[in-house]
Amino acid sequence: MSDTVDERIARVTFTADGLVAAIIQQWDTHEVLMLGWMDAEALRRTLTEGRVTFWSRSRQEYWRKGDTSGNIQLVRGARLDCDGDAVLVQVEQVGPACHTGTRTCFDADDLDAVRGPEAVA
Amino acid sequence: MSDTVDERIARVTFTADGLVAAIIQQWDTHEVLMLGWMDAEALRRTLTEGRVTFWSRSRQEYWRKGDTSGNIQLVRGARLDCDGDAVLVQVEQVGPACHTGTRTCFDADDLDAVRGPEAVA
Repeated sequence: MSDTVDERIARVTFTADGLVAAIIQQWDTHEVLMLGWMDAEALRRTLTEGRVTFWSRSRQEYWRKGDTSGNIQLVRGARLDCDGDAVLVQVEQVGPACHTGTRTCFDADDLDAVRGPEAVA
Repeated sequence: MSDTVDERIARVTFTADGLVAAIIQQWDTHEVLMLGWMDAEALRRTLTEGRVTFWSRSRQEYWRKGDTSGNIQLVRGARLDCDGDAVLVQVEQVGPACHTGTRTCFDADDLDAVRGPEAVA
């Protein structure tokens, strides 16, 4: 693609707080690893460095995943959704994604949903 | 699990607007189909009806996916993340997930990310 990173980031609809939700997915197994938040600068770093950077809402700082833990996320692709307010980042996750030590951040808490009916073809 | 749906919903940390991000994933292929938003009532309906219901931020109303389009989402499971502010709902998607007619809402717009290095074992 010939558009610049600025042009690509300009297609994102950020929240009033200047953030966009970023779904992080293991590129080959398609596991959903975690959901994080990015501002325009975190997204720019993610798209240009090959490593995932978030904006930490709790710490109010940039957070390049794995710089402390070693559990880095190596970018394999990134896509924007149809209305521009969610990003899907496909990564090679090194080690566990979750700070609790589980593979994904969704491993621990089953919400015990009622299963819907089978689809009718 | 023996906890009630109220107890499960009480584990969710909603935003100041009363919403939680919901990642919708095809249960078997693990494709990420879309990201939507739920308030407590939309989550309750999703967990108890076997069909996915969102809160539409633009229309300010409940939106049971597929009631108009026929492209329903049949629940297969739902999980909460480690800090309680994102839900992963696994579904059987009937038809395309995206209102544009594509399989997922992430099909159209490649953000052309720089690929990170290969992981070192």
